[in-house]
Order: sequence, then structure tokens, then C-alpha cells
Amino acid sequence: MSGEELANSAVAALALRSREAAKVLAALSRAEKDAALSAMANAISENADAIVAANKIDVEVAKAGGAIEQYLDRLTLTPSRVEGIADGLRQLVDLPDPIGEVVRGSTLANGLEIRQIRVPFGVVGMVYEARPNVTVDAAGICLKSGNAVLLRGSSSAAKTNEVLVETMRAALTQTRVPEDAIQLVPSQDRDTVTALLTARGLVDLVIPRGGSGLIKMVVEEATVPVIETGVGNCHVYIDADADLDKALAIVINSKVQRPSVCNAAETLLVHEAVAAKFIPTVLAAFKEQNVLVHGDENFAAASGDVRIATDDDWAREYESLEIAAKVVYSLEEAVAHIRKWGSGHTEAIVTDSISAAHKFVISCDSAAVMVNASTRFTDGEQFGFGAEIGISTQKLHARGPMGLPEMTTTTWVVTGDGHIRA
Amino acid sequence: MSGEELANSAVAALALRSREAAKVLAALSRAEKDAALSAMANAISENADAIVAANKIDVEVAKAGGAIEQYLDRLTLTPSRVEGIADGLRQLVDLPDPIGEVVRGSTLANGLEIRQIRVPFGVVGMVYEARPNVTVDAAGICLKSGNAVLLRGSSSAAKTNEVLVETMRAALTQTRVPEDAIQLVPSQDRDTVTALLTARGLVDLVIPRGGSGLIKMVVEEATVPVIETGVGNCHVYIDADADLDKALAIVINSKVQRPSVCNAAETLLVHEAVAAKFIPTVLAAFKEQNVLVHGDENFAAASGDVRIATDDDWAREYESLEIAAKVVYSLEEAVAHIRKWGSGHTEAIVTDSISAAHKFVISCDSAAVMVNASTRFTDGEQFGFGAEIGISTQKLHARGPMGLPEMTTTTWVVTGDGHIRA
Repeated sequence: MSGEELANSAVAALALRSREAAKVLAALSRAEKDAALSAMANAISENADAIVAANKIDVEVAKAGGAIEQYLDRLTLTPSRVEGIADGLRQLVDLPDPIGEVVRGSTLANGLEIRQIRVPFGVVGMVYEARPNVTVDAAGICLKSGNAVLLRGSSSAAKTNEVLVETMRAALTQTRVPEDAIQLVPSQDRDTVTALLTARGLVDLVIPRGGSGLIKMVVEEATVPVIETGVGNCHVYIDADADLDKALAIVINSKVQRPSVCNAAETLLVHEAVAAKFIPTVLAAFKEQNVLVHGDENFAAASGDVRIATDDDWAREYESLEIAAKVVYSLEEAVAHIRKWGSGHTEAIVTDSISAAHKFVISCDSAAVMVNASTRFTDGEQFGFGAEIGISTQKLHARGPMGLPEMTTTTWVVTGDGHIRA
Repeated sequence: MSGEELANSAVAALALRSREAAKVLAALSRAEKDAALSAMANAISENADAIVAANKIDVEVAKAGGAIEQYLDRLTLTPSRVEGIADGLRQLVDLPDPIGEVVRGSTLANGLEIRQIRVPFGVVGMVYEARPNVTVDAAGICLKSGNAVLLRGSSSAAKTNEVLVETMRAALTQTRVPEDAIQLVPSQDRDTVTALLTARGLVDLVIPRGGSGLIKMVVEEATVPVIETGVGNCHVYIDADADLDKALAIVINSKVQRPSVCNAAETLLVHEAVAAKFIPTVLAAFKEQNVLVHGDENFAAASGDVRIATDDDWAREYESLEIAAKVVYSLEEAVAHIRKWGSGHTEAIVTDSISAAHKFVISCDSAAVMVNASTRFTDGEQFGFGAEIGISTQKLHARGPMGLPEMTTTTWVVTGDGHIRA
């Protein structure tokens, strides 16, 4: 067999075991699933030393390979980070079970009772990069929502992921949840990703988590259903009717509060009517926060620190202390810029005009639109979801932060008493 | 340019016009959209002669090409069918507008108001076969749900579709809806289908409507999001605790009431405990209704009319007066058969046992499960949706009959007063 055939058959074998586990898992009660989550959390806490030791090996290899600081930081697990991961599972215990929820229901004129109820997808594949916390977060969220999970992490976190998954599976043996509800897909070569993405009929859904390169690869290769997450080229638009104090606070918060995440702002658009007043203020604030500005000629004219922006800047998700900035001559121009360059994640408008806010909201075509609030609020925890598997930037199924209900599908249950159609 | 490049650029040009139209359409009120639907309906009524005349040409060509009776019937438009199509648009006027509906909403602890509201997808592509009524139904449903539509029908209905689309577009010129909200994709060659299925960033969603070959092709070729519809290998399972009078009525209704559609039954599974009593009765009823039975050895032993079923029969969607039939020794065996051979559309159980019904419902993994009711009830009109674009057999986004709300996505609108994240 070729490497590709080997990967296909290895992944198919894992997926078949996932399907069997999913059948059992779908019928378990909330109490049974919560007991499993608690057992997993305790096992991770107890096994923290082994987890940190395995992680050390992964980190050393990455260092020897010349990985940058930011990458190493994502990869590294400390004892307190391990405890944080275990606590994440404990928080899932407190959340309501989405399975069995009646979404809609009615009794038809002929007496048929119809109910649309939430049921698990079945088998969910996760494809992600070098953040080992995703291994546990995703396993927990999938388990609570009744789905078996196939975890395909980065090969650079292979040792860490192996110990994490072994720890969780060992904990499951003491519970009603089959241990095959959580399985690790080998990460030694790329063929296993392709096999996972094309396992139609075996895998119900794949969710990629990572940078735009990973997301693009998954969307292009997958023949199983995919939910795109996380690429965020977010904009803040300062309208002609903006309160400029609020505008300044929102722009700075959107950019600097946590620049490495997908809901951080990447481009500032300022209406011409307030540009003369706002540009010097915002540039001073950016300077104070060490934000590098890639601006149009209006911004460049205001400060020698501003670099001239190119099309590449309008398209980029910096994920760092850099921002693109531009003056627009109307709300329509701001929206056109956002629709052309944005990724459909989050856009903010700062305005006191109801009509401007309304027009912006219905025109942007993004997962979330903020009116007088920071882009940083697009987040499952902030929205009160309690757990988040990612932020969907697609339009099908889920859009924006995805909590437990978004990890389910529905089925129609129709109950009659011998009803036939006339 | 090659044929493929020509098709790509032609479809891209159409899709860009659709996107412009979609922007306008997304902001229109229900009254403006309803006025457009009424104008389209009246134009179709008034233009019935030209529509029937164009259809006659398509039908003659199909006849000369040796098309079978069933195919010709789907293709043919009579004056009364044309009026029925126009009435379909008028019925859409009476349905509520899904756009702007607040799906969820709350005020967060920090005072932020979050609302999840329904918004249009944008541009929807329809790929379908030789039923010209789909041209108008799909255009109407897309328009009411605020989406621009690209219609790629069968080349065998090309003349009919051209007149239908010209009629609708001419009507739109008198309304607030841009005429490019409805566009026909040339059907002369297959390259335009591929171009539509791969127009990422231009087309938000493609819905195929047709036989299993079409659906499979669309799913495999598409890189834009797809909703699979309509392949229905539906099962009726007669449980050990079934009322056999109800069972007989439900089996016969599921099979014969309209055998050519996706929610008709294709396989009968009978529990061994009632087989001796039920098989002779159901075979007599099938004979009376001219249903050809492909049965296992138990059915074959009961009548010389029964042909021995092969794996091909378990897999087939007959769409005609044929049925596969088999004795099972447990509910679990029935479910295993359904999960192995079914298409995830609709399964029915006939039983008086609450626990059997519960187990069947949570185990089947299908879009709809009927308890003591005919499979024929899986239908948007029967469910009270008023209009149906198709029946989804996938798990993502929509499952089962898709009405107007299923033709929308959502966006999160977050309103603050200068809120920033701490």
C-alpha cells in the first residue's frame, strides 16, 4: 500500500471505532456524560507531571527546530496551565446538555405531533495546530454534545497530545462513555489529514482550528462537511457621528487588548468628517501602545511613523501590534472596503446615528457587527455560552461563536396513531 | 480560452451581478418583496401561452431523443400547470418574512445587548433537472428569503426556463427588486455547472435538486457550501408490538400514495414475531396495488410473485411500485439495516411500545423518524412550512424539509455604549 492508502485505512479503522462509540454516547444521559467529564478532569490534574514532562520533549524539539517565541508559548504547558485545562472540563459539567432539546414542535391539524429535537452529529474530526489545550477542550465539548471526536493535532505536539488522550481515555474506562469516544489520529505525516478530510460517510463534520493556511487547506481538500473557523480580518469604522472618546477607547481595545486572536481589529476606517480631529489623537495612542500603523496618505501626512499601506495590508490579519488605517468618504465606502477585504468575522461601527448603525449592520455581511463596542466581544464566553469550539466565519449551520448547541444537528420526530397521507 | 475558462468567466460575471442585486435585496422590506412576487405571478399567468409554446419545443426535442414517459411528464407544462406555478408564488406572499427575525437575544452582565438575527445568505445557486416548475419555485423562495438566485436547470428544459426567467425578470423591472436577483446560468454544456460549484467567494450556497447521480456529482465537485437534498431510501419497520391494521395502512400508504417521490418507502422490515401473520396480508395488499416485491427467503416462501432481494435492492431508491422486504429478529437488527443501507431521509416504526419507539428514534440517525405514521409526511407543506426548497439529508445547517427560515443565515448584532473588554 502507498502512504496515502495506509493513511486512509488507518483513519477509516479509527473512524469505524468512533462510530460505534458515537452510537453508545448518543443514548447516554447528561449525568453519565458529566460523570465522564469530571473523571477526565481529575485524571488530568493527577497526571499533570507526566503531561508536563511529555510537553517538555515537544518544546525541546520545537526549540531545536528554531520555532519562534510566540509558537513556543502556544505549545508550552506548565502545571498551572494543565490545571486550567482540567478546570475547563469541570466548567462543561455545569453547562446544560444540548441533546434532546426540543427546538420547535407543534400538533398538526390532522393530529400528528411533530418535534424537532437536537441530536449529536455523530463523529467530529478536529484538525488543529500546536495548541495542546485544544486537544482537551475539543474532546470535552464533543463529549458533552454527544459526539465522538477524532483529534488530529500538530506533529509538533505529538508527545503532549498522546499523554493527554491516554489520560482521558483511561479515565473513561471507569465511566459509561466508551473510551473510543476520544481518539487521536496519528500526526506523523500529512496523509492522515487528507484521509480524515475525505472520510465521507465515516466522519460527519470536520472543524479546523488554526491559521488561515490551515483553514484554506481544509476547505479545499475536504469532501466531508466542514465548518470554517477563526480567520479574522476585523474592522473598526469611525462614523461621522461618532463620539470620539468612545471611538478612541474602542479602537485601542480592539487592537491591543489581545492582538494575537481572531477578534482583534486589523484595519481602522475613519470618516473624512472626523478625520482631522481623530487621526492625531489615535496616532498618539497607537504610539503609546507600540502599534505600528500602515496608513493611507491621510495618516502618513499626520506622522512620520506611519508606513504607506498597500493592498497586502488591507488583506492581512496581522495578529500583532500592527494596524492598517484609512480615511473613507462615506459609510458606503467603509462597507465596500469591508466587503472587499474582510473575512466576514467581526466589524465595529462607532456612531451615535441610529440610521448609520442600521445601514452598517445590514450591509456588512459578517458573523458579528458591533455598534459602539470593541470587536473583542465576539467570543463564546463573553456571549455567555460557557464553552466555545471556535468562531464560525461561514454562513451554513453556525455563524459566530459556536457553543454546545452548535455542535448538534436535529431530527424530526413525528408521532401519529396510524396516520396515512390522503 | 478553453471551454472551462469561458464557463468560469461567464458564471463569474453572472455571480457578480447577483452579488450586487443581493446587496439591494437584503435591505428591502417584506412589502417590497411581496409586491415583486405578486408581479412575477401575474406576469407568468399573463404569459402562459408563450411559456407553453416554448415548453412544447423542449418536449418535442426530448421525445425525439427517446425520453421515457415519466421524464416527459416532469418536463411538460400545460396551461393549468403554469397557473399552478404562478399560484405557488402567490402563496409565498402570505408567508412571514424570515429576514430580521431575532433568533436569540439577551443583555449581558456588562450591559451589552446581543441579538442573533436572520439575514440572507446572499447568492444561492440551484442545480436541478428537467422540472421547469423548480425554476419558478426556487426563484420565489430565494427572493422571499432575500437571496439572489443563479438557476442552472437542465439543457432539456432550456427554452422553457429561458421564457420563465425572462418573464420573471421583466416583472421585476416594475418593482424595487433588481432584475439580476433572478438569473439563468446557460445550460448548453456541463462546464457551467462546474463553474457554479467552484465559485468560492461569489456564490454562498448551492442546492442540488434531482436524482442521486446529480446530488453525488454536486457534493464531490463543489468547493462552495452545499446542502444535499432529497435522496430517500426510506424504511418502514413493523415492530413486534405493532398494531397490524395500522401497520398495513402505513406500509401501503408509504409505498403507493406517490411512489416517485423521495419520502416514499423503499424497504419494509418486519419483526419475526409478527412475520407469520403480517407477511401474507401485506403481500396480498401489495399484489392488489401492483407493487413488485423483492424479498428475503421468508417473503419468497410466502408467494411465488416475490423476487429474491439482493444487496442492490437494499440500496436502491426504486421511485416506482417496487419494494424490498425482509424479516428482522430484533429492533436492533432493523436499525443496523437502516444505518447500513439507508440515506438518512425518513424511517417509520409501527409499534405500541414506548420503549421501542424511543430506541428507534434515538438510533436511526435520519432526518425524520415517524412513529405510527406514513413516511409520506416528511414534507414542508405537511409540516406547515408553506414552501419548501427541498428536503435536506445532511446534518449541517438544515435537516429535513427546508422552508424559508432554512434559506437564511444569521448575524450577531452587539450594541454597546463605548464598551471595551477588560
